[in-house]
This record gives sequence, structure tokens and C-alpha cells, in this order.
Amino acid sequence: MNTKGSIVKNEIHNEIKKIEAEHNLHFSNTQKVLLSIEGSITAILDVLYGKVSIFTLDQHFERADDEKAEMLNLSNGDEVHHREVIIFGHGKPMIYARSYIALPRCSKEAHEDIIKGKIPIGRLLKKYKVESRREIKEIYIEEPSAMLKELFKTDEDFVSRDYVVIEHGERIMWTKESFPISYFKKEI
Amino acid sequence: MNTKGSIVKNEIHNEIKKIEAEHNLHFSNTQKVLLSIEGSITAILDVLYGKVSIFTLDQHFERADDEKAEMLNLSNGDEVHHREVIIFGHGKPMIYARSYIALPRCSKEAHEDIIKGKIPIGRLLKKYKVESRREIKEIYIEEPSAMLKELFKTDEDFVSRDYVVIEHGERIMWTKESFPISYFKKEI
Repeated sequence: MNTKGSIVKNEIHNEIKKIEAEHNLHFSNTQKVLLSIEGSITAILDVLYGKVSIFTLDQHFERADDEKAEMLNLSNGDEVHHREVIIFGHGKPMIYARSYIALPRCSKEAHEDIIKGKIPIGRLLKKYKVESRREIKEIYIEEPSAMLKELFKTDEDFVSRDYVVIEHGERIMWTKESFPISYFKKEI
Repeated sequence: MNTKGSIVKNEIHNEIKKIEAEHNLHFSNTQKVLLSIEGSITAILDVLYGKVSIFTLDQHFERADDEKAEMLNLSNGDEVHHREVIIFGHGKPMIYARSYIALPRCSKEAHEDIIKGKIPIGRLLKKYKVESRREIKEIYIEEPSAMLKELFKTDEDFVSRDYVVIEHGERIMWTKESFPISYFKKEI
């Protein structure tokens, strides 16, 4: 993928401005919110578009390679749960999300719910009253993969962000969320 | 105050719809976000309107009466820190916020920063890497107090929400945030 990134070292509002200037575009308020909130994306989509649902494209366990070990501060070879979903609203795909989850750092109940793949992670954190914080790592514009082109029926660029969810000082989840750059432009 | 409330027992998106129906109004996306996010309001305002600042109207210590003890799950007579601020953006008042903080439940450093009154609580939670969760308790429309009418130079109704921030299973803060109902209607 050809990413044109912006590592979030400074404050999010400055990073968003930088991307707008670099790409000569103007994000809508809703887009800015979706790129910058540290709470649940699902909760915001529920409020804006009515209760959304998720469709799981793939989920499996894998052993962390160096890259994934770094994403989650794990050791190479530790087990991670990989999950790829589409968030649907109004019967249409809205957001693509890929997560790597350090399952041994989650409670047994949450662990089981995650594997079932029916409930968005934001709702699970709420259900299990998880006290956590999020760190946004990167916001960037990129060309979509063939799969995303097919799923969203578009060739346009996507805007994406990567973030980690931290509980008890440890990363429990790394997530990337992406949507086509024309989405969430207008209020509906 | 004449409040026309809606206790948040169900999901937020249903509560917001209920208020829209009861008052025959339509919240903008930005208003919905400000009423429903479980992350920091300041962070969102920073992204939407450029870095915002706060002006402290009042802060003092007081002994919790029954009402405040209940808000924070404290005992009657425990010390709470009361703080009233206006969040300013573009040189104009945007949001009024009143907080009751259970200072003994905060770290010493955060405690000192809170008393200085210069930094919005959302930024403090970030600065001290606090892992927490928020529970929105109520969203409602009400007539403004004389002070709010004067500060915002308006007689119109305000929309408000109350929420608590929970850390280590205990309420560290109860906050009410309010803004005039015509604010955040249009993208700027």
C-alpha cells in the first residue's frame, strides 16, 4: 500500500491540519471526529446513523512476528487474535477495521465475546466496564487494497488511523480504521 | 432550573432521538457528538475549532452534602473540589462546565494541576495517562441561569449532559456540560 502518513507525535488537531494542507482537502466535522476521538467509534456511529452492525471478514489466531509484537509490546511468537470487520450502517459499509488483540491480557468473558465476533470492540469495552485509554498513533491517506475497492465499490483514496487501547499500562489492542475519503462529508 | 430531562438508562442514541422527538428539534452531527462522546470534549473542540482555552469562573473546596455525596459515591461531609469553567474557542464562550472532583482519589500531581485551574480535565487525564471510563447519566434541555444568560448573551434554552469519570471502580469526577441550543449547528 502506498501510504502517505503522518505520525501523531504532536497534538491530533495539528496532525489533522497538516494532512489537510498536504493533500489540499478539508475534512468535515464528522470526519475530524472519526479520526480523532479517543472513545468508541461505534458509539458515535450509533448516534449519528442509528445502531450500526459489524460483519466479520476474517478472524484467526496467529503468532506475532516482529511487527505485530511491536504493535502490542509483546514478544515475537506470542499469540494474537486478528480480526477484520466492516461496520455497516443503513445497510452500507461505512468503516473497515482491522484489529490485533492481545487476548491473554483480556478477561475470560471478553475473550469469549471477542472470538464470537458479533459485538464491536467499543461495545465490549463498555459491557465489561473496562477502564482504559487510547493513543492514536498515526493518521494517513492511502490507496485502498483490491479487497477494499471491491467491498466499498470505489477506487478513491481512503483515510485511516491506527491506535492502541491501553489497560493496566499494557496494550490490549492495536486497531486500524479506514473509510473512503468522500464518506461522512455531509450530514444525513 | 426548569429541567426537562431524560435519564440515560438506555443507549445514548435512543436517548438523543427521544429528546429530538419530545422537543421537535434536530441535533446536528456535531451536537450529537458533543452530547454522546465518552472521550474528552476538549480534544474534540481542539480538532473542530482550533485549540480551545478555559476560563475558571469559580473553584473552591466544600464538604459534600447528600446530593454531592451521591454524585461521587462519597460520604456526607467528605471534601470535594468544585470547579466551574467556560471553554473558549475563537475568543467566544462555547461550553459551560461544572465539575465536582473527589480529589483524594486523584494522584498528587493531578490534584495540584486541577487546583491551578489552567488545564481542561480531559487534557489532564491524558497528561497523567489515566485509564478510565465515562458513564453518561443524563441529557436534557433546560432554561439557563441568569449567569449563563449573561455569559453567553442569550435567553435561549441550553442543552446539557451530566457524566461521571470512573477510575479503579470509583467515581473521580462528576461533570455537567452545557451549551446554547443554537451552538454547533453549522460547520465552520
